[in-house]
Amino acid sequence: MRTSQLYLSTLKEAPSEAELVSHKLMLRAGLIKRLGSGLYTWMPLGMRVLRKVEAVVRDEMNRAGAQELLMPTIQPAELWQETGRWELFGPQMLKIKDRHQRDFCFGPTHEEVVTDIARLELRSYKQLPVNFYQVQVKFRDEIRPRFGVMRAREFVMKDAYSFDATFEGLQASYDKMYRAYSNVFARLGLKFRAVAADTGAIGGSGSHEFHVLADAGEDLLAYCPDSDYAANVELAEALAPTAPRAQPAEAMRDVETPRQTTCEQVAELMGIPLQRTVKLIAVIDAGGKLVIVLLRGDHSLNEVKLSKVAGIGEFRFASEEEIRAAFNCPPGFLGPVGAPDGTRVIADRTVAAMSDFVCGANKPKYHIAGVNWGRDLAEPETVADVRNVVEGDPSPDGKGTLSLCRGIEVGHVFQLRTKYSEAMSATFTDVDGAQKPFEMGCYGIGVSRIVGAAIEQNFDERGIVFPQALAPFALALVAVGYHRSDAVREAADKLYAELGAAGVDVLLDDRNERPGSMFADMELIGIPHRLTIGDKGLAEGVVEYAVRASGAVSKVPLADVVRHCQDVLAG
Amino acid sequence: MRTSQLYLSTLKEAPSEAELVSHKLMLRAGLIKRLGSGLYTWMPLGMRVLRKVEAVVRDEMNRAGAQELLMPTIQPAELWQETGRWELFGPQMLKIKDRHQRDFCFGPTHEEVVTDIARLELRSYKQLPVNFYQVQVKFRDEIRPRFGVMRAREFVMKDAYSFDATFEGLQASYDKMYRAYSNVFARLGLKFRAVAADTGAIGGSGSHEFHVLADAGEDLLAYCPDSDYAANVELAEALAPTAPRAQPAEAMRDVETPRQTTCEQVAELMGIPLQRTVKLIAVIDAGGKLVIVLLRGDHSLNEVKLSKVAGIGEFRFASEEEIRAAFNCPPGFLGPVGAPDGTRVIADRTVAAMSDFVCGANKPKYHIAGVNWGRDLAEPETVADVRNVVEGDPSPDGKGTLSLCRGIEVGHVFQLRTKYSEAMSATFTDVDGAQKPFEMGCYGIGVSRIVGAAIEQNFDERGIVFPQALAPFALALVAVGYHRSDAVREAADKLYAELGAAGVDVLLDDRNERPGSMFADMELIGIPHRLTIGDKGLAEGVVEYAVRASGAVSKVPLADVVRHCQDVLAG
Repeated sequence: MRTSQLYLSTLKEAPSEAELVSHKLMLRAGLIKRLGSGLYTWMPLGMRVLRKVEAVVRDEMNRAGAQELLMPTIQPAELWQETGRWELFGPQMLKIKDRHQRDFCFGPTHEEVVTDIARLELRSYKQLPVNFYQVQVKFRDEIRPRFGVMRAREFVMKDAYSFDATFEGLQASYDKMYRAYSNVFARLGLKFRAVAADTGAIGGSGSHEFHVLADAGEDLLAYCPDSDYAANVELAEALAPTAPRAQPAEAMRDVETPRQTTCEQVAELMGIPLQRTVKLIAVIDAGGKLVIVLLRGDHSLNEVKLSKVAGIGEFRFASEEEIRAAFNCPPGFLGPVGAPDGTRVIADRTVAAMSDFVCGANKPKYHIAGVNWGRDLAEPETVADVRNVVEGDPSPDGKGTLSLCRGIEVGHVFQLRTKYSEAMSATFTDVDGAQKPFEMGCYGIGVSRIVGAAIEQNFDERGIVFPQALAPFALALVAVGYHRSDAVREAADKLYAELGAAGVDVLLDDRNERPGSMFADMELIGIPHRLTIGDKGLAEGVVEYAVRASGAVSKVPLADVVRHCQDVLAG
Repeated sequence: MRTSQLYLSTLKEAPSEAELVSHKLMLRAGLIKRLGSGLYTWMPLGMRVLRKVEAVVRDEMNRAGAQELLMPTIQPAELWQETGRWELFGPQMLKIKDRHQRDFCFGPTHEEVVTDIARLELRSYKQLPVNFYQVQVKFRDEIRPRFGVMRAREFVMKDAYSFDATFEGLQASYDKMYRAYSNVFARLGLKFRAVAADTGAIGGSGSHEFHVLADAGEDLLAYCPDSDYAANVELAEALAPTAPRAQPAEAMRDVETPRQTTCEQVAELMGIPLQRTVKLIAVIDAGGKLVIVLLRGDHSLNEVKLSKVAGIGEFRFASEEEIRAAFNCPPGFLGPVGAPDGTRVIADRTVAAMSDFVCGANKPKYHIAGVNWGRDLAEPETVADVRNVVEGDPSPDGKGTLSLCRGIEVGHVFQLRTKYSEAMSATFTDVDGAQKPFEMGCYGIGVSRIVGAAIEQNFDERGIVFPQALAPFALALVAVGYHRSDAVREAADKLYAELGAAGVDVLLDDRNERPGSMFADMELIGIPHRLTIGDKGLAEGVVEYAVRASGAVSKVPLADVVRHCQDVLAG
């Protein structure tokens, strides 16, 4: 294609509402335009990128034996009422009434619809396994849409749903999708990591997330460089310390801490390591009861883990009023010694192994030091893993220590088991003649989010550095002087035609602009390879070849340039 | 692909709700499944057909220089309020409130959104012309969804929008799209006709519809076999008779018509041609006034034409009560002689040229004969073309007579001019420095409807007869005895691999079914070419080749079969 035929619209500055690099660069490069809050138009340049992602996703789904279909976006409420999600899904779901005042939603996901298809269509174990997928626009009414396509309300998703007769079958279907997802991200040239994940509201027995690694990622991931272990920090287990708890060596004593309300401040005042301190977090459990959670001073609470501790469920943090009423003490000086009678105490595994620790005294402006379990207070009622792992923690698989990195979730695979098939009475006749509910899996890829994530991972001060597989064009051919030099125009047109005939995805920049402005645009929009043709080079019989990522520049004889491009594009 | 990998689900009988052949066959062939009223899932087999249509549409749009983008389906109400269509569009538009109670709609079309993009993006005549298109799911809340994908609520549409600086530019853009549309339907192998059309609610200055010709079509089309003239009957002009009105030859007289209330019954009673009678239609014009419309007995009212007569506008038919009150006579005996004083009379051009005609007497059980303009009643206040043309009418271009056929509208192109750009203040700086509104065109193709229309045009008693370009597979390879004969399995697998390597879009039927059942399925789903491989043929070294459309069967030596298939598929 030629820039004269392409709607190209680059900006020097990003609109001020954009916070994230990828959002700024997508707007500056003209890949997307904002229509409203969380609503974006994919402009022609952006569409080329989106279509390349879609093509790789489709190809890998087809190779894995999944079959493409297209379900309606508008879904009858009745199906969602069968699974109870009409109420449960919450305000993210866009509810609609049609002209007859019947209830519908704009599908945020399609478990209900596909399970309805299965119960009507799949009658025998002989028809199984089946995996249906679609590439479709979804809508989720985010309370605070932001980051451009990364957290838009309307977005393009690939969703797949597998139906098996047995759990073993589901596991095999799941493994196929896991491999297909790995292939997708590898083919797109992205640095990614698959991590064990929490199943959350979707439910089921097992789940992995696929993350594109990027500093701006919203998710924190733990992985072991020496093994295959990787998990979302939400889920990554913090093992109990292996060393036994040390014997008490100090007497318990008050420490005056007039302005010290955090463990950091107390440790600094006392000149001790933060690891010697314990902090107290007061929460209200699902039943409305106050619960005390104890963490080492340098650790942070893992809310997902805490909610899974027996008897806790969906908790919330206690308010300052509730704390003052229960402890008769302001926050900042709370501790387990002398805590309100009958209050449940959950000690993180690390805390349970500490001795001679420092914590709040439950009286204003005081902490206590030399605290020991069994001597100064009862052994904790519950010992559980309720903290986030930190860099250097032992890997749960026993094969080394954990590292942390940040990721952007672009894929998620779930073993749903029979959650939806049972709720919707979706059964098949098994080989023994019995009616059984389908074993289901579901598998999502955020197609439009991938574009944002890829940019978040691949940019520099000049703009986007697209991996070749999703670049809008593989090669830019910048013709300097196209409008004033017959020699340049003829050579550029000839080279453009030859590259096209050789199957190279090339953009000929034939605009009447300054060379600097043309280079800047081609760099901003992230084209990975560039040729520059101009009078000076032509006089020497050469074309300049530049690599977007490294900035490396070399001269290539005009006669060799098509072959050269084919070679570098083939990697 | 193999049938063992394809989700194939054919039915012996179509569900009873399906009326139209294409709807029945699409359900029987398992191309679509119903989710709710006007909501269909495209199953894997149907998706293959839909994707083939999409691919041809995209290719022709790109060749015509249009650029693909993707606008949000969910659109802010504010844009529609700017053009007044938020109220005007009516209940077909699905209106939605988001979690913040802001108004949105599920886009039934995208003129407002694309005009908003243009006013933000296109600032100079130098950026023009531009043509943006998208392939997208639309929703129109039909009051009575029916005919499967032909009149579904959710459907796939290709919509394009052109922006030009001048009317001449718009005409050139329009002509490009007209040619691209002709190419699309020709490449899909469909018999179609482009006809001049009414611009309706979209507005603008010129418009053509593209119709797939089929007996079940909802639209009646007029065309001249001897010239290029073609128009929707809504728009086709009925010329005034060229012969002057004959002199009166009869005296006006009453005719007793005790049970004769229609022109047909009166003509039969009197033994005269229907062409001698005149019928009266009473309507209420946009201003609420009664208007009399006179048509020759064998002609029918053209509502679009009547609404365009000066002073009429959006009319409705008078009720029986209104008729009795005005005429003091029941319907069935009404006529222009002695009609209520001061009532406007519109005579169709043909009626205005009649003499000695028969019409209602304005008294029960009587008609009058020998009626003549100027003698028995005043010359009509308005003479206008308000009837539908009929077979044999002179062509408006003067080059022969009109024929009629039925069509299914699958495309529509409009010259919008500045209707939307003016309403939304979408302007550009022209070469003279002045701000001018864009000259716009819009161009729609009903992508999913094309599939239904293609079937409506191409079927027989055994099922669908897809044109090759949109068939789910070009060729079926039926292996008879695949599961019991090693020779068949090996030969079929080998041939399947060879055909695939030769680029043939082949479906290997490797199911363990009776041959009759496999043939019936391949015929029902409309695969245009079929090979049958079995032990008997292999013994002779031949494969059977059958053509779906003609049923012609021949034997092809096994060694020649790949070449043979390439030849017949190349047409």
